[in-house]
Amino acid sequence: MSVSKAPARKVILTGDRPTGPLHLGHYVGSLKNRVAHQHEYQQTILVADAQALTDNTDDRGKVHRNVSEVALDYLAVGIDPDVTTICVQTWLPELTELTFYYLNLVTVARLERNPTVKEEIRLRNFERDIPAGFLTYPVSQAADITAFRANLVPVGDDQLPMIEQTNEIVRRLNRLADREILVEAHALVPPIGRLPGIDGRAKMSKSLGNAINLCATPDEIRAAVKKCYTDPLHLRVDDPGHLEGNVAFAYLDAFDEDRAGLQEMKDHYVRGGLADSKVKARLEERLQELLRPMRERREQYAANPDFVWDMLRAGTERARETVAKTLDDVRSVFVTPGWGGR
Amino acid sequence: MSVSKAPARKVILTGDRPTGPLHLGHYVGSLKNRVAHQHEYQQTILVADAQALTDNTDDRGKVHRNVSEVALDYLAVGIDPDVTTICVQTWLPELTELTFYYLNLVTVARLERNPTVKEEIRLRNFERDIPAGFLTYPVSQAADITAFRANLVPVGDDQLPMIEQTNEIVRRLNRLADREILVEAHALVPPIGRLPGIDGRAKMSKSLGNAINLCATPDEIRAAVKKCYTDPLHLRVDDPGHLEGNVAFAYLDAFDEDRAGLQEMKDHYVRGGLADSKVKARLEERLQELLRPMRERREQYAANPDFVWDMLRAGTERARETVAKTLDDVRSVFVTPGWGGR
Repeated sequence: MSVSKAPARKVILTGDRPTGPLHLGHYVGSLKNRVAHQHEYQQTILVADAQALTDNTDDRGKVHRNVSEVALDYLAVGIDPDVTTICVQTWLPELTELTFYYLNLVTVARLERNPTVKEEIRLRNFERDIPAGFLTYPVSQAADITAFRANLVPVGDDQLPMIEQTNEIVRRLNRLADREILVEAHALVPPIGRLPGIDGRAKMSKSLGNAINLCATPDEIRAAVKKCYTDPLHLRVDDPGHLEGNVAFAYLDAFDEDRAGLQEMKDHYVRGGLADSKVKARLEERLQELLRPMRERREQYAANPDFVWDMLRAGTERARETVAKTLDDVRSVFVTPGWGGR
Repeated sequence: MSVSKAPARKVILTGDRPTGPLHLGHYVGSLKNRVAHQHEYQQTILVADAQALTDNTDDRGKVHRNVSEVALDYLAVGIDPDVTTICVQTWLPELTELTFYYLNLVTVARLERNPTVKEEIRLRNFERDIPAGFLTYPVSQAADITAFRANLVPVGDDQLPMIEQTNEIVRRLNRLADREILVEAHALVPPIGRLPGIDGRAKMSKSLGNAINLCATPDEIRAAVKKCYTDPLHLRVDDPGHLEGNVAFAYLDAFDEDRAGLQEMKDHYVRGGLADSKVKARLEERLQELLRPMRERREQYAANPDFVWDMLRAGTERARETVAKTLDDVRSVFVTPGWGGR
């Protein structure tokens, strides 16, 4: 007698602040997974331009310009807009209304304790001049996550407090409403660690200037590989080399699928007798192979900006259907009854 | 050759948090002026239910119930919905989007320094558990004021920092936009001071339990007048009485139009030989005269709740025309171009 029904696919939400081109660090830590996830889950990618504005108010042109650039990066790596919804945050005012009401569900002290925000405030040297929108951005992020009824949110482990904050809001609102209006989200921490910067620093980052962009030209790739930090003790070819902290090998670990060949090269390097230039030649070949098809796809799409903007508009309207439904539910808690029309 | 044009009327915005019935203190400090202003200015009254929620999240039923009660009080005192726009804050989500973007234009330190917020935090014993929405409510208020392009905002002198905060946002946004998108507001501090509570405390306030509501019944008015604080040194009729701090005379000053008769009574009281009961009899008569027509008008409207809700819906839609235009201008600064549709 029971009706057999396919279980609904889990909803996954990710996104990026459009403040510059995406790079290999994004690819390894996130974009690659998104390409894999898009058939397994119901995936939405939010271009978080509103969040980017919280610390780029005086440079909003940069944020606006990078919306389509980031979208091109998505298409370049193989995100399929027919199965993944790609949408623009400032085009979804529903999210701002959710944020407004959620601000009543969080204390100032709780926001100030948020370790992610604390660390980002430190990095930006804001001290007492934190824009209010920056302090409250975890609430805006909670609005995003809950608006899409996301079950899964891929985050680095430094972002776990954001998910915790979101779920506190979820529970508080559901208690207030006395029914389950919002769903709790679970963090999906990717198995692979962070990709180091070409300078050997722990994190590849646009602002540190140690990144290889996904749209890098062949010459840029060559130059970046040449600059890659290796082993400062490996002065002569015959010296034994070290793999730890060696960025060239970290990248090969991430991108070289010939695991046996790579192991052989590592053994040789550690024994001594293998020049850095050989390692870098192999790395450059792999990176050129990896990035060439991305760059070509990107160029095809970039030649047709209408396609990109149409895709963003269509994705945003698709997103609006979900988001507006959540907003209706949240409004039922806060808005004075009798409005009617909407 | 020049086209003669009537100068546009100044725009005035006022409002109340719908947390309970309005009382004589509201009438003297604000409502009476609104009745006078409605023909002189283009007046909007915002029923600030969203702002009331910032410290009443757990008691939102009270806020929602009081929206129509406050609207009835407006009609009772003679606000004419054909000339004054009466609208509901939670029915104008445009205001939440403005608030969201304005949060980027204000620092946390600036909000924490706001003397009005500091004092209200103290009164509510919030300490570190201030809801974020409460700390940021001056930003929401700036959204209200600027959304309506209000030139004038009637406030008590304790609210002047709110206008200052609003104008800082106005100037910051106009600088960002490099054109005059928002207009600065001016405070209109009413000439008459605050009405004391019936217990002699400086402020009549619902939460202090020392108020006479505009919808009070004749018996309630009688009982309140009986409890009015007068002169504790005036023990026997023959004793000379004191006017300072004497609530009965403060109310007569506010409501008795027979100034000569009142002066005579004051002289008699100060000389000695006039019983408090005589003063209170005169006061009760005046208050019954003042409040009877209000109560009757209120009852008429209350018998027709559809009228009140239709009025609020129509007022809100009228308000939306102005507010949506401001939002369009502010969006032009923050929202990534290319949205199209909206």
